[in-house]
Amino acid sequence: MNDKTTRVDTDATLSYGGSLPGHFYSDAAIFAADLGFLCDTQWMLIDHASRIPNPGDYFLFAVGKENLIIIRDRENAVHAFYNVCRHRGSRICREKDGHVNLLVCPYHSWSYALEGQLRGAASMADNFEKSRYSLRSAHLRVEQGFIFINLATAQPPDFGQFIDRTLPFLAPHGFETARIATRKTYPTDANWKLVVENFLECYHCKAAHQTFCSVHSSEKLLAYGAGPGSASHELATQFSSQLVTWEPEAAAKGFFTGRFADDWHAPYFQSASRLPIGHGYATESVGGVPMAPLMGDYTQYDYAQTAITLNPISHVLSSSDHAIAFRFTPRGPLTTDVEAIWLVRDSAVEGTDYDIAKLMRVWDVTLSEDKVITEDNQAGVLSTAYTPGPHSRHEARITDFCAWYAEHRGVPINT
Amino acid sequence: MNDKTTRVDTDATLSYGGSLPGHFYSDAAIFAADLGFLCDTQWMLIDHASRIPNPGDYFLFAVGKENLIIIRDRENAVHAFYNVCRHRGSRICREKDGHVNLLVCPYHSWSYALEGQLRGAASMADNFEKSRYSLRSAHLRVEQGFIFINLATAQPPDFGQFIDRTLPFLAPHGFETARIATRKTYPTDANWKLVVENFLECYHCKAAHQTFCSVHSSEKLLAYGAGPGSASHELATQFSSQLVTWEPEAAAKGFFTGRFADDWHAPYFQSASRLPIGHGYATESVGGVPMAPLMGDYTQYDYAQTAITLNPISHVLSSSDHAIAFRFTPRGPLTTDVEAIWLVRDSAVEGTDYDIAKLMRVWDVTLSEDKVITEDNQAGVLSTAYTPGPHSRHEARITDFCAWYAEHRGVPINT
Amino acid sequence: MNDKTTRVDTDATLSYGGSLPGHFYSDAAIFAADLGFLCDTQWMLIDHASRIPNPGDYFLFAVGKENLIIIRDRENAVHAFYNVCRHRGSRICREKDGHVNLLVCPYHSWSYALEGQLRGAASMADNFEKSRYSLRSAHLRVEQGFIFINLATAQPPDFGQFIDRTLPFLAPHGFETARIATRKTYPTDANWKLVVENFLECYHCKAAHQTFCSVHSSEKLLAYGAGPGSASHELATQFSSQLVTWEPEAAAKGFFTGRFADDWHAPYFQSASRLPIGHGYATESVGGVPMAPLMGDYTQYDYAQTAITLNPISHVLSSSDHAIAFRFTPRGPLTTDVEAIWLVRDSAVEGTDYDIAKLMRVWDVTLSEDKVITEDNQAGVLSTAYTPGPHSRHEARITDFCAWYAEHRGVPINT
Repeated sequence: MNDKTTRVDTDATLSYGGSLPGHFYSDAAIFAADLGFLCDTQWMLIDHASRIPNPGDYFLFAVGKENLIIIRDRENAVHAFYNVCRHRGSRICREKDGHVNLLVCPYHSWSYALEGQLRGAASMADNFEKSRYSLRSAHLRVEQGFIFINLATAQPPDFGQFIDRTLPFLAPHGFETARIATRKTYPTDANWKLVVENFLECYHCKAAHQTFCSVHSSEKLLAYGAGPGSASHELATQFSSQLVTWEPEAAAKGFFTGRFADDWHAPYFQSASRLPIGHGYATESVGGVPMAPLMGDYTQYDYAQTAITLNPISHVLSSSDHAIAFRFTPRGPLTTDVEAIWLVRDSAVEGTDYDIAKLMRVWDVTLSEDKVITEDNQAGVLSTAYTPGPHSRHEARITDFCAWYAEHRGVPINT
Repeated sequence: MNDKTTRVDTDATLSYGGSLPGHFYSDAAIFAADLGFLCDTQWMLIDHASRIPNPGDYFLFAVGKENLIIIRDRENAVHAFYNVCRHRGSRICREKDGHVNLLVCPYHSWSYALEGQLRGAASMADNFEKSRYSLRSAHLRVEQGFIFINLATAQPPDFGQFIDRTLPFLAPHGFETARIATRKTYPTDANWKLVVENFLECYHCKAAHQTFCSVHSSEKLLAYGAGPGSASHELATQFSSQLVTWEPEAAAKGFFTGRFADDWHAPYFQSASRLPIGHGYATESVGGVPMAPLMGDYTQYDYAQTAITLNPISHVLSSSDHAIAFRFTPRGPLTTDVEAIWLVRDSAVEGTDYDIAKLMRVWDVTLSEDKVITEDNQAGVLSTAYTPGPHSRHEARITDFCAWYAEHRGVPINT
Repeated sequence: MNDKTTRVDTDATLSYGGSLPGHFYSDAAIFAADLGFLCDTQWMLIDHASRIPNPGDYFLFAVGKENLIIIRDRENAVHAFYNVCRHRGSRICREKDGHVNLLVCPYHSWSYALEGQLRGAASMADNFEKSRYSLRSAHLRVEQGFIFINLATAQPPDFGQFIDRTLPFLAPHGFETARIATRKTYPTDANWKLVVENFLECYHCKAAHQTFCSVHSSEKLLAYGAGPGSASHELATQFSSQLVTWEPEAAAKGFFTGRFADDWHAPYFQSASRLPIGHGYATESVGGVPMAPLMGDYTQYDYAQTAITLNPISHVLSSSDHAIAFRFTPRGPLTTDVEAIWLVRDSAVEGTDYDIAKLMRVWDVTLSEDKVITEDNQAGVLSTAYTPGPHSRHEARITDFCAWYAEHRGVPINT
């Protein structure tokens, strides 16, 4: 990845309390630099390991001009190899997923082991050293069943520092033994930062998300709708008075509870919480009705939901009986792929234990609505008449996201 | 708008008597500067007020990256608001036209009065001042029923100076009580200046416009086919000898007559004329047959037509019983939207008083033909083999248009 | 054409023995410079003269922003005129091919003789000199029925020096009396240099071209699959021992034989050979079965094939009974049109003497396969993980093609 240290615009500043100047959401050079920044400094959640259960199973993941083969080797380790033959650069794998015993380039049949070493290369010069032509790889970690990658050419950021605080939130759901039930991509014609901003506030929920609002309690949505820190201190405090009662009760029943939110100086801008859904709903479904077998450690519903932001483009939402992983993949200055991956307990049987359409319903509706409003947001931000207005009290989290972005990208902040 | 003062190419010159060097018709930077120049220095005719007869009626007009809400307020004043919420920049209106009582942003429900003031914005900080967040507006004038806008960030050009000389030509047609009968857009893959050049000469009519030539007398087309100044002084003088007879006769019957044409130093490069159609035709229709109820002050046909160029991208043609407004909207270096709006007397009833297909026929055919020839012109101008050839005696008006463009854009002119 | 002398990247070097650094296959500025280089320094084979047998017959050829009218005049000479009217630049011819008696511009009816002189231009000033406004032309040569063009604004390269060594290879096939049987374009999403590289080696044939390999002997393909010089000296020498027997035998029967290959310092990087097809096949067809009447001087099959590279984007393959001309036309940094033109003896009758589907079969399959593998190659080369790997012993010809390109484009070569 390139340009991660480039300061593209030396004049622009961020006024703390609002969003960024307009060209940050459209400029091609800023986009290229943003993409390099994300790939190099973040661990990106890209999928769940259940997609490739057996040695030789692989899938492709594309970001920027890169195409990666995510493959399970013979020892069950997972690798991220650049899908680029070391001979003349051809793509090696053509299908978006599949199974191979050997990675064979279709151009000239150079072949590689599942661990990346060059195995076969016909008719090379006598002094050709195969050992110098292993597939190039990106950094990859699997944790709690989730696959994370980082494309730094040198050392990646410390993975423990990245993941450790979220582990208590992830652990009860047994993601290592979870399984992908279904997935869907929502291609969105908007800059990735507008997608993130939309995900980090619920000020828009009342106007835009009728289904979502039917599930969650309105006061929680405004105070915590996008996780801890997503509303003003005052509003959060009001709602916290309810949590002061709920959290000890839940803990007494043996359920996990917890909350934290990074400030904008933190490297990953993480947050996590487990909060009651509201309305006496058991899970995040229409009507709050159970949708699938309980996951992980859960033996009964706690009527709550975990929300984890691993970084601005990687999120997990988890009820007691299902979870959704969200990945936001920047595709261009004005395009982002929003992808949702629905997870259930590994043993759950489709049709018997869960229904795909019901499982998807709340977030399929919500993400479809988000696509429209985010695209409308982008269209207006392109105008010369756009200047950032002040954030409301329910947009505290995007105030800080913009500050986090500015600090990490070298944009002066006017507080 | 940006770049209006940018000199993109400091080497190019215009040889007076021919068109511009090729890159003026394709270069992206020149296009951006042109667009800023047009938006900032011209009053652009964008529509007719009958499109939004009642308070709360609106339509959207797009130019460059801008999208404007043209809306009638409660006092019947018409405004041009940028379609950009003052909060986070979302588009406020999504439909190309409609009716509202309040302008409500679909993202977070900020709402604005029809006059632009922010009315509602929930959960803002206590010190939030609504009065500072009215919708931004562009300059707008309504005159004789036509809507004009200008996007200068500071003072717009003087509207009186712009419109006054055309009022005597517009007034007899009663455009304030006219109504849009139909409209059609002809997206054209050519630079806006090639679209203008095509509209300002009739040297091509014989080869390209059989229908158009069946309506108008050939000698007028060559001398005045694109308005006064569209042929050489010599040819115009020849035809003027006929006008010397016709004009007093028409005036004696109480009909309006007149002619004028700006030279290339003028700010808007305007022209206007009322000339006999020829062939004894009552109106500009196939066969010259009447097509709709007489407009404005006309109580009988004068067998003539008014042609007004308000500026190179805004034109009106008006017979006694109908009129057409033309707007040329630059979309990109190689794309322009040509739009025609057909107008009839407000009281005219479709189907009874006029037939849409017949009303459109002459110019629908002609503009469709113009699209083809202008696109062919653009294709050739892209070649390195293109150099401007000399204009014919019937292209005097485009000689001066090119000079007008050059003078206003800072391109040296070689006379 | 522009930029032919521009050095776009002053840091990049070619390591002799591998392909070029990645950005040479995608950068827009390098592409523009490459296109100028090809148009200005090469004679491009663009078609066969049988496409325009009679005076007034023409076809259009597009390259870069240029569009050329290739037309036969009244004296049977063929011209390449820029399809740009000398008046205001309009395209003159709109159809991809046709017949005219006079070239009449559809815009204002300026008309030109088949030899290019301006004939008619109405209403021009009295001092207008028609003789100054002939159509501009590009350099064109017809040799052995093939049409070659060069777009240099000054003197083109010496045509004799370009063509002479290939004449003995072309002559026996009687191309002057050949006829186009059919043609097909394979639009390929890859830089032109990757298309060329793919054409200049047969290391990929075994993996990618089952049909092609069923026709040709495998040892020849590896040693000479892409003409002389397409394998290492060692491999070529091994195969040459067979040729030492075959060539005198063929010559004794009166058949033409021969071989040559330029090194990478030569201006056109030409090569030519006549080699046995192998498997006892009479012609390059599935099963080796005859497909059409013998061409030119052939009165019996010699079971061999001529392969001529006139320059990297112009090739001819010729069996005793048919031939194929290949033109590779760069369209953009990542797009190239590969076009094949199948030729048969002029007197051959379709349906009776040959079957189009059978005639096309071997190369239609092969070029369709090439499109896929070349596009996969391009996709991988875009990655930052791409670095050129070492060429195999069967890729000696692309090693030299890359060196030829580097030398002629001013890229330092690290040998």
